[in-house]
Amino acid sequence: MCRFLAYHGAPIFLEELVTSPSHSLIKQAIHANESRSETNGDGFGIGWYGEKDRPGLYREVHPAWSDENLLSICAQVRSHLFFAHVRAATGTATSRANCHPFAVGRFMFMHNGQVGGWRAIRRRVETFIPDSLYAARVGTTDTEALFLTALAHGLEDDPVEAIETTIGLVMNEMDRAAIGAPLRLTATLTDGQTIWAFRWASDRSPATLYFQQSHAGTVVVSEPIDERREDWTPVPPGQVLIARHGEMPVLRALSPTVPAGSGLA
Amino acid sequence: MCRFLAYHGAPIFLEELVTSPSHSLIKQAIHANESRSETNGDGFGIGWYGEKDRPGLYREVHPAWSDENLLSICAQVRSHLFFAHVRAATGTATSRANCHPFAVGRFMFMHNGQVGGWRAIRRRVETFIPDSLYAARVGTTDTEALFLTALAHGLEDDPVEAIETTIGLVMNEMDRAAIGAPLRLTATLTDGQTIWAFRWASDRSPATLYFQQSHAGTVVVSEPIDERREDWTPVPPGQVLIARHGEMPVLRALSPTVPAGSGLA
Amino acid sequence: MCRFLAYHGAPIFLEELVTSPSHSLIKQAIHANESRSETNGDGFGIGWYGEKDRPGLYREVHPAWSDENLLSICAQVRSHLFFAHVRAATGTATSRANCHPFAVGRFMFMHNGQVGGWRAIRRRVETFIPDSLYAARVGTTDTEALFLTALAHGLEDDPVEAIETTIGLVMNEMDRAAIGAPLRLTATLTDGQTIWAFRWASDRSPATLYFQQSHAGTVVVSEPIDERREDWTPVPPGQVLIARHGEMPVLRALSPTVPAGSGLA
Amino acid sequence: MCRFLAYHGAPIFLEELVTSPSHSLIKQAIHANESRSETNGDGFGIGWYGEKDRPGLYREVHPAWSDENLLSICAQVRSHLFFAHVRAATGTATSRANCHPFAVGRFMFMHNGQVGGWRAIRRRVETFIPDSLYAARVGTTDTEALFLTALAHGLEDDPVEAIETTIGLVMNEMDRAAIGAPLRLTATLTDGQTIWAFRWASDRSPATLYFQQSHAGTVVVSEPIDERREDWTPVPPGQVLIARHGEMPVLRALSPTVPAGSGLA
Repeated sequence: MCRFLAYHGAPIFLEELVTSPSHSLIKQAIHANESRSETNGDGFGIGWYGEKDRPGLYREVHPAWSDENLLSICAQVRSHLFFAHVRAATGTATSRANCHPFAVGRFMFMHNGQVGGWRAIRRRVETFIPDSLYAARVGTTDTEALFLTALAHGLEDDPVEAIETTIGLVMNEMDRAAIGAPLRLTATLTDGQTIWAFRWASDRSPATLYFQQSHAGTVVVSEPIDERREDWTPVPPGQVLIARHGEMPVLRALSPTVPAGSGLA
Repeated sequence: MCRFLAYHGAPIFLEELVTSPSHSLIKQAIHANESRSETNGDGFGIGWYGEKDRPGLYREVHPAWSDENLLSICAQVRSHLFFAHVRAATGTATSRANCHPFAVGRFMFMHNGQVGGWRAIRRRVETFIPDSLYAARVGTTDTEALFLTALAHGLEDDPVEAIETTIGLVMNEMDRAAIGAPLRLTATLTDGQTIWAFRWASDRSPATLYFQQSHAGTVVVSEPIDERREDWTPVPPGQVLIARHGEMPVLRALSPTVPAGSGLA
Repeated sequence: MCRFLAYHGAPIFLEELVTSPSHSLIKQAIHANESRSETNGDGFGIGWYGEKDRPGLYREVHPAWSDENLLSICAQVRSHLFFAHVRAATGTATSRANCHPFAVGRFMFMHNGQVGGWRAIRRRVETFIPDSLYAARVGTTDTEALFLTALAHGLEDDPVEAIETTIGLVMNEMDRAAIGAPLRLTATLTDGQTIWAFRWASDRSPATLYFQQSHAGTVVVSEPIDERREDWTPVPPGQVLIARHGEMPVLRALSPTVPAGSGLA
Repeated sequence: MCRFLAYHGAPIFLEELVTSPSHSLIKQAIHANESRSETNGDGFGIGWYGEKDRPGLYREVHPAWSDENLLSICAQVRSHLFFAHVRAATGTATSRANCHPFAVGRFMFMHNGQVGGWRAIRRRVETFIPDSLYAARVGTTDTEALFLTALAHGLEDDPVEAIETTIGLVMNEMDRAAIGAPLRLTATLTDGQTIWAFRWASDRSPATLYFQQSHAGTVVVSEPIDERREDWTPVPPGQVLIARHGEMPVLRALSPTVPAGSGLA
């Protein structure tokens, strides 16, 4: 499991949300409250949009709680849209290539969840990545593979449908391999203009996801970064939150096509 | 706080005690049971004696739980005397220079505790390190400074007295600086032949320390590495365990000279 | 390009060959003499056989010249058969997963060379890796892929033939993709008992390879580790040196089956 | 030896000068032309001023040529004043604490040179650091010690005089310790508004230093970052270049007070 945060709104210093809050991601890296794994010390990453189409990335294998570079960068960089992630590895190695967020072109993606039985179906899922995107497959995570698969299935045109398609494709492989463990996908995607925050699981028990709308913008988190729990609204399981620039965020139901008998409609 | 383990006896693979047990140091790095800090992910280190007088060292800033090198080295290296340590930093940076164990010549030292108010007295304590040893002062930890101070105060001739002297010197500085926080010293020292395991605190609440005598040898731990708690004997606070090669370990009282009014006889 | 060293003979400390010589691998990491890339600072690795069938590995992304762990481990570990490698990346990332040597079961493999146009054919070559070995494919290097392909083509029974087959398969893919750049394979393989040192290139210009037979054992190097050049015998291009335990090393011609018109018989 | 670059002028992306040029610092890290050490792979660092008084810092022990974070940050961050440095260690460990630039408050400092016989006088020079600044002494480099000494000797009021005083103090210690090796100080300092680039050596043979004035601003480099050598003006040995915001840079002679008989007026 992992913990993450996404922001979209008026340009603010990353530190305002990533490092300063009372229960910031840094604190969650040491001890998360609502995560299956308390500690998230298998690397971290931030991605932010500035003046360019493509985001900047800073990803490292060290725990977030002891990285002075992270503190410094967050204190200096102002952005209107950024992601931050602290990782608890679910079976794949701790390396920069396996840290979130992942970026391809102007898109950025991060994930808190798992593809059940990943080791058994990794190769199969990688076949969904077209040759044109294979050079971007540099790690071994389920997350990177999900992202590249979605990119190959219309992510640039219809992100929600692309993620639904990806869920369907992966669930199909899990079904073929008779994997009992669930696919849990609590994930955030952006193209630098809009944030899509997905919350879906084949066992209806996806990792937590909350959002908050403030005067500055929209914040999406794995768990509240402050003590005011009442200010955070859960994204219901099976839904996606869409936060477009300058608009109020909206919720939409997810309806991936999954194999019959997978225990989920 | 940190967690550690020391072994002295018939040559065994390090993995037998460092990585394989049900509640090994690797597990304790993720989640310790008897430590003030549950997570000990600010680096780790192993030191072992082979054919040479001086020990080998492998120390890294990454958490122990994700280091494949550590697993590999522990699986291959056999030793009659070794130390292993997982670190939870108490204010000083995460760097290799600040990882335990520390080695000078044939001596090795590791620590689980703290010098209260270290930041305020670091410089003063460093004056106890003679010029001849100053080149070995490459980090900023209290532990390294304690070790070098002890080396300068007869560690090679009488380790127990040297540590008592060191405690006295440091307590004196803490007293001068009106530091209320305690000095807690649960530490292990060796010269490659004998292990000295100290357990002392100015507030009489030192970090935990246990030992076990088996047919193979003596094991000293911060907390039991298996479920058989009854097999582990606590080292009483204020005492030092001395495990000499080929002899049964003995306990001895520690009696450092500390300032009057420091709250401790 | 990279530089490497392999040894097979009476058990010696790794430092004798890896770190101590006047032109050791550490020195070559800073400045090699016979390499297309002078500097080899994209990571390093050592692998050694002790009491177990499988080798121990220590691989890191830092340059070899500044790693105190490497010095310490080499000073302490004695082995009858070991590999050491310093890397100059040829297009793939610097990460532990991409450091040599690679190990699967009791086999170990390292490489100094390149598969021309690797980026264009990586995916194709990875299809040669069977499902049973795919979990071992954790990096993106040509070397790891070559090794896993060879393992899948009889490496355990006839290493020379397996490497010849692998060369043929890869050359075929390069031919299909109309890649003009050469395949250069100067590589060393072992099963813990025998060392096979290959020197082959499609442009007949493979990276250098030398060997020396001494009373202690056989040493195979990319370039001489001392000033006595006359003591080092080149392995001729297109040949493999086979050093079996307790026997004098022998040379054998390599005859991979490569596409007609690839510019090589 | 090391290589560095400083810029002061209209806000530009760091990549324009740090990573993009034909002979950028990244290239110089692999192979410098005018440095005593060709390779500068013992870490790197960038420091830049944005909206705050204090600079942001990104420093790492990996070679600059393989760090994707460095490329990403330089591509995204725009600054009116920044430093970049690639390190070739002169005897002290490779660690983040020993990477340049060093920052205290709004001041930043980097160095290409050496304090001859540093190991012998490190402790003595550290005594020049007042208690109020000692917490900032976290590494073992001569550079960090020089910087903190200068800060303690009026750097905030008169940087040139403070550096001259520092040179004098250190030369005195070197003289006392009968050190024959020179003190070479090619260094750059800033307070976020002005850049001071010093070029001085006790043997009159300081590391190289050039500057260029363009429409955008002032660039100071260890060696030219492009092929147009004629566009770069050397800073004469024994002088300091002062580039104040909005003004043309000026040169001034340095006149530290050094011991008689040190071989230098």
